[in-house]
Amino acid sequence: MKSSQKVNPDLQKERDTRTFNLEELSDILGGGHEQRLRKNQIAAAVENDVEYNGPDPAFLSRMERFEEWMRRSSLLVRKKDDLGELIQDHKDFVNYNTYVTKKRPNVFFDLHFGMFVPTLMGQASEEQKEKWLIPSLNHEMIGTYAQTEMGHGTFLRGLETTAHYDATRQEFILHSPTTTSIKWWPGTLGKTATHAVVMAQLYTKGVCHGIHAFMLQLRSLEDHRSLPGITLGDIGPKFGYNENDNGFLKMDHVRIPLGNMLMKNAQVLPDGTYVKASRKELTYGTMTLVRSFIVRNSAFFLAEACTIAIRYSSVRRQSEMRPGEPEPQVLDYPTQQHKLFTLLATSYAFFFVQQKMVDMYGRINEEIGKGEFGNMQELHSVSSGLKAFTTAVTNSGIEVCRMSCGGHGYSVASGLPDLYAYFTPNCTYEGENTVLLLQTARYLIKCFRDRNLSGDSIDYLRKGAWRRPANVDLTDIGLLCRLYEQRARGLVTFSAEKVDEAMRKGEDMVGALNKASLHTVRGANAHCHYYVVKSFADKLQSLEMSAPLRVVLTDLARLYALDGIAKCSGEFMEENLLSAAEVKKCHQLVAELLPIIRPNAVSLVDAFEFSDDMLMSVLGRYDGNVYENLLKWAMKSDLNKTDVIPAYEKHIRPLLKRNQAKL
Amino acid sequence: MKSSQKVNPDLQKERDTRTFNLEELSDILGGGHEQRLRKNQIAAAVENDVEYNGPDPAFLSRMERFEEWMRRSSLLVRKKDDLGELIQDHKDFVNYNTYVTKKRPNVFFDLHFGMFVPTLMGQASEEQKEKWLIPSLNHEMIGTYAQTEMGHGTFLRGLETTAHYDATRQEFILHSPTTTSIKWWPGTLGKTATHAVVMAQLYTKGVCHGIHAFMLQLRSLEDHRSLPGITLGDIGPKFGYNENDNGFLKMDHVRIPLGNMLMKNAQVLPDGTYVKASRKELTYGTMTLVRSFIVRNSAFFLAEACTIAIRYSSVRRQSEMRPGEPEPQVLDYPTQQHKLFTLLATSYAFFFVQQKMVDMYGRINEEIGKGEFGNMQELHSVSSGLKAFTTAVTNSGIEVCRMSCGGHGYSVASGLPDLYAYFTPNCTYEGENTVLLLQTARYLIKCFRDRNLSGDSIDYLRKGAWRRPANVDLTDIGLLCRLYEQRARGLVTFSAEKVDEAMRKGEDMVGALNKASLHTVRGANAHCHYYVVKSFADKLQSLEMSAPLRVVLTDLARLYALDGIAKCSGEFMEENLLSAAEVKKCHQLVAELLPIIRPNAVSLVDAFEFSDDMLMSVLGRYDGNVYENLLKWAMKSDLNKTDVIPAYEKHIRPLLKRNQAKL
Repeated sequence: MKSSQKVNPDLQKERDTRTFNLEELSDILGGGHEQRLRKNQIAAAVENDVEYNGPDPAFLSRMERFEEWMRRSSLLVRKKDDLGELIQDHKDFVNYNTYVTKKRPNVFFDLHFGMFVPTLMGQASEEQKEKWLIPSLNHEMIGTYAQTEMGHGTFLRGLETTAHYDATRQEFILHSPTTTSIKWWPGTLGKTATHAVVMAQLYTKGVCHGIHAFMLQLRSLEDHRSLPGITLGDIGPKFGYNENDNGFLKMDHVRIPLGNMLMKNAQVLPDGTYVKASRKELTYGTMTLVRSFIVRNSAFFLAEACTIAIRYSSVRRQSEMRPGEPEPQVLDYPTQQHKLFTLLATSYAFFFVQQKMVDMYGRINEEIGKGEFGNMQELHSVSSGLKAFTTAVTNSGIEVCRMSCGGHGYSVASGLPDLYAYFTPNCTYEGENTVLLLQTARYLIKCFRDRNLSGDSIDYLRKGAWRRPANVDLTDIGLLCRLYEQRARGLVTFSAEKVDEAMRKGEDMVGALNKASLHTVRGANAHCHYYVVKSFADKLQSLEMSAPLRVVLTDLARLYALDGIAKCSGEFMEENLLSAAEVKKCHQLVAELLPIIRPNAVSLVDAFEFSDDMLMSVLGRYDGNVYENLLKWAMKSDLNKTDVIPAYEKHIRPLLKRNQAKL
Repeated sequence: MKSSQKVNPDLQKERDTRTFNLEELSDILGGGHEQRLRKNQIAAAVENDVEYNGPDPAFLSRMERFEEWMRRSSLLVRKKDDLGELIQDHKDFVNYNTYVTKKRPNVFFDLHFGMFVPTLMGQASEEQKEKWLIPSLNHEMIGTYAQTEMGHGTFLRGLETTAHYDATRQEFILHSPTTTSIKWWPGTLGKTATHAVVMAQLYTKGVCHGIHAFMLQLRSLEDHRSLPGITLGDIGPKFGYNENDNGFLKMDHVRIPLGNMLMKNAQVLPDGTYVKASRKELTYGTMTLVRSFIVRNSAFFLAEACTIAIRYSSVRRQSEMRPGEPEPQVLDYPTQQHKLFTLLATSYAFFFVQQKMVDMYGRINEEIGKGEFGNMQELHSVSSGLKAFTTAVTNSGIEVCRMSCGGHGYSVASGLPDLYAYFTPNCTYEGENTVLLLQTARYLIKCFRDRNLSGDSIDYLRKGAWRRPANVDLTDIGLLCRLYEQRARGLVTFSAEKVDEAMRKGEDMVGALNKASLHTVRGANAHCHYYVVKSFADKLQSLEMSAPLRVVLTDLARLYALDGIAKCSGEFMEENLLSAAEVKKCHQLVAELLPIIRPNAVSLVDAFEFSDDMLMSVLGRYDGNVYENLLKWAMKSDLNKTDVIPAYEKHIRPLLKRNQAKL
């Protein structure tokens, strides 16, 4: 994991100033000592396996990338059983997949095990499971999940694909009636998958019963050709994820047997009678879990970007403060520290809030198992809001890190362009961020109005207003949490008033929420911000750790909270929580925390233990030997295969010689 | 320019609600009626020329892209003389180049005419010009400008390349003494250019005289092979600009004649005597002009992103407000309007501030011609600050536009991923943004302390404090300008105090500026923000236009100014310029302006007259026929060449059949 080369002395110097135990922190971040060791062993197993060595995707065409990642994906299927004790639970397996694919798509796994198999588990009857589950688990079929259409993403009820039941032949007719109804975006749908769960509007006896799931075989299991009536294809290049054949599916009156509707819940009888599901299905659970994974993505992608930028800023020297002095490390500049250390603190904050979400998910899921649904909405609201809040911050944060590396950040060699291109869809999928914030906002307004609702995350909304003391200690984390709480409370209150105002003017609730949405979104955002700050503070209280580590993490928490106030100071002042002088003081405290964090900055990113193999960044190498490796990397460019490029004869020579030719 | 197909009715509906004269606005944006017509004729000439038709770069490999853009570049050289009266000035020519290359690199033009030729003009002696200028203008050589090195970008004095003068042979020895000294990044250096102006530390008689410019032939004019002692190559793939061979150059004691140092200013005599330049050369001028082009880039890239997102948001329908109602256009949602209309207003603001910069450049350049250098520093400060301010806003704004298009924004078909990847280097090159803001900050602090300095843009700093009236009209643009002015004044004052404070504690000026840099950057930013708001307001006053257009542009200016206050409200409150209630009022006014702008939104982007050919966006098509064209576009994907991909036999079939094989 750590390269054996000599470490760049500037980077070594940064490591030598560490004030805490690195292992202790890595254990916390790695989910405990045992799991962390296993994770690192899995990483080493992949890195030391020559079969997993492959070309750098930076230098491959779309098709080459696609094939190389398919090679890795199929290798993983073949090898997964050889790892023995290293794979003890699902988390280990996910780690294994991550190391093999380097966080890029696995066409045989991601959709197949992430969506297709779980849908069968949740929605197929016992008989159907028997038929499809075993071959799925054995990879005798490759499944995907075809929900989104060209014209509809977020709004499920708007899907246009139809499934008309034909009782005379006991078949459904799957059909794409319009261009906009073409299934669009599902991963592996274009060229890889053999089967899909297709979401379609069910019609029986002339009545539409809404969206239901159908099993559709897409391609022959003998020669992989697409089956009659089915048009499949790749949707073309994307910002990232070009190792995946996100695809389209157009169905032209494709007939499937009655038994291909997934019938665990709702059913269609042979005569076409529709039997409703006995109870509305609980799909909140998976959705919430997926969103907590996305919050984890936010923490780790941001941590990776910080790792690259902080290591490189230690190695990079630029400008001179005074003539004749040596050029400082870029990390010496307060503006650079401000960019990077606040993001570093953010990645720690996101890491801890994600842990809290997983705990909450476990607790509430247990309640649901016992038939208590009281906290489900709160869970949904927290997960929606945090997904939106953390991905938005990480999204812009990665770019701050990239640009903080100057020109070299723009090179694919830095790893940062890809990090961004692969992270940014997190803002859009599994609920578009603005839509999610609006959902959270709706819940908050509801809580504010309905005094019967309660929950850990929203109880503060109904407490009486807080009277702040005349003097406050802005370095006290408890006080900072209180400020965030009250800012959220104030903005939610204000937005609720705006909703009321619109209703007084004649809008219904829906119309009023829409009218007031700019205000309600601000409230939701402040609520999420509060939740993150509070989780960081709570975690510091509940986690056992050594005193030196506690000092460092507490400073990070302070930096996160104070910088958040500095950046959103208007909202704190709008609620009369801080005076102008106090806001200026927050700015000053932020500036003063930076040199305090500086001696531990590199160690705080080292603690994440991202291997060079995973970072894929010349700038972020553990050994800091950036420049010689930048040259080595560049030499792999296609254009460097020959000194004189083929285009010379075609375009350059005729240009240079055209005057001679004219003579 | 406008596609002839039937326009999508939702988009047509938006156009039908326009309240102003479209031509009138397009003329303003196009630099007057005549120039605008010429621009559109040039665009049409390129679009109707079949030779300029080529494959969509989205589906090409790096090498194919490179070759296709080289083909376009060489075609342009061949054809440029055929356009006759269409090309009347340099601006027309730049437009022509832009249409041919679709804003991507032209390897025979950009560096050659943008840097190489101007450097010869400015720094070569008459004799040297005679030798090199004509062949350059005739394309008998292809030049580039080799300044940045792997280890140094912004800080010129830190360059390591050496040019030692050997008096015995009357030659310079150009050498790259370290890995970090390798020239890195210059466009076309890797594979295309035959010559370079190389910046190197000049040594004569054992003394270093700093950075000077040297002419170096890189490649043979007969067979294009790199010359002895010279190692050239491409630096590898980047986030964007992959049509360019940004390159590296390593020199191993390469000897060039004495006459290859550019000697208009400083000189080296045959015996090695160094003759200083008679006066410090004025390079501010070009730098400033380039930065004003970058501000123009900011305006236009943001306008393009808005064009795509606003047209698509008119066509896209999503969700239903109330069961059974038709799905609203996405543009109906206040949150979507807020994202897009504030950015639209921003692009107009940037457009007008850029015009002001060009005017200022002209005026001050004239003064410089007369030997008056008094305003040069101000020009430099304005251009540095605005370059940083506008590029940062546009950079994140493009991404807001992209994500506002939901999933389809992530497809290369939207045009937005490329728009971002090609814009974002504007934040880094020609002065890294933070470095530039620090420069502006330094100038502002200086102005604040030195009462002898004056200039339009900074005179407000020394005026007595403004006493705001008890009641203010937040819709009055004059008042809004005043608020921005006073916020900047307050923050600059505060940062100057912080500098003083650090000096009192023993720092020298340089150290104090560094210590206070988080505060000074805030001041610089507020200063630039003020300058943009003020320019928008001034332009509205000075431009002649019809009443209906004035109403629309005034609303845009209001939206820009009010949204800026809402977003940075803390800084206005820190300076006690607005109360909490007034800030809430600003938020409300922003919300109220959105539906007022709505009927003109599509027309306000139409007015920019970006052709479909230039936008390269399926989502932003003038005719709004998005969905059928998304499908057409996807069909071009490499992966769609066959129904069953080649990887099937290699990876998919063995996987599906492995259990059978085991039997």
